[in-house]
Amino acid sequence: MSRKSEARRQVDKQLSFALYGAANRIMRMHRRFLEPLGLTFPQYLVMLELLETSPGSVGKIGVKLGIDTGTIVPLLKRMEQSGLISKKRDLLDERRVLVELTPAGQALQASVWAVADQVKSACQIRDRQADALRKELDGLARPVNPDGQVDTSS
Amino acid sequence: MSRKSEARRQVDKQLSFALYGAANRIMRMHRRFLEPLGLTFPQYLVMLELLETSPGSVGKIGVKLGIDTGTIVPLLKRMEQSGLISKKRDLLDERRVLVELTPAGQALQASVWAVADQVKSACQIRDRQADALRKELDGLARPVNPDGQVDTSS
Repeated sequence: MSRKSEARRQVDKQLSFALYGAANRIMRMHRRFLEPLGLTFPQYLVMLELLETSPGSVGKIGVKLGIDTGTIVPLLKRMEQSGLISKKRDLLDERRVLVELTPAGQALQASVWAVADQVKSACQIRDRQADALRKELDGLARPVNPDGQVDTSS
Repeated sequence: MSRKSEARRQVDKQLSFALYGAANRIMRMHRRFLEPLGLTFPQYLVMLELLETSPGSVGKIGVKLGIDTGTIVPLLKRMEQSGLISKKRDLLDERRVLVELTPAGQALQASVWAVADQVKSACQIRDRQADALRKELDGLARPVNPDGQVDTSS
């Protein structure tokens, strides 16, 4: 194995471990605050999103979470069954499905926002540092187009 | 709601989305290369780890992946059932369980390393950038101790 491919392997290895590890730790850090609300971590993210922009399109929420249709659909279905959200067709575009918070979902607003506060306090991270990190993560693991440009369309 | 807590909420929201999204994208990016090998993404990380250090302790692998005992045990059990790894007791410390690659697991070495090469090529990221990002992720979402120090013991 050449030195170059050895180095390439190391980069993928270390970054994959760091990213997977950090995502798991942040999910675990939220868990004890989310369990009393009956929410999983991805459901919490959907709640945060809809508390800001409701109704929201199913496709857009999936892209924001970095998950595909096969994963977002059952996730939203469970939230619908819990009575937190309801689905409706977009009147402007019949193919688009929108989701919005039900009154029961809206009622969780203060509790959901309190979770974000609690986690931020439990985590040692400064706002500016978090912002720089977020920007870098947003650009990560996006496929490169044949012309060498990063694909940010999805 | 105060401005300060509004800002705190935004930081947690944006960072959680960025981290969860990036982790999902990187897993999806690996998927098409891993499926032919019959490996999931966490199993791939275990393989990478054991190709470098075998045997490895179950606890240590869990910490590296950022997952707890309840998650690492079934993950390793499935890999044992697939014939990729075998378990043994640590002769120096009977309470520790070690895992090591079987000959069948070892035989996947070239294919597993090729995946890291392929993903690195598909991803537009420079080695130095990846290294800085990895360091930042490694420090993220670690609980703060009562004395204000980040807990890196786990």
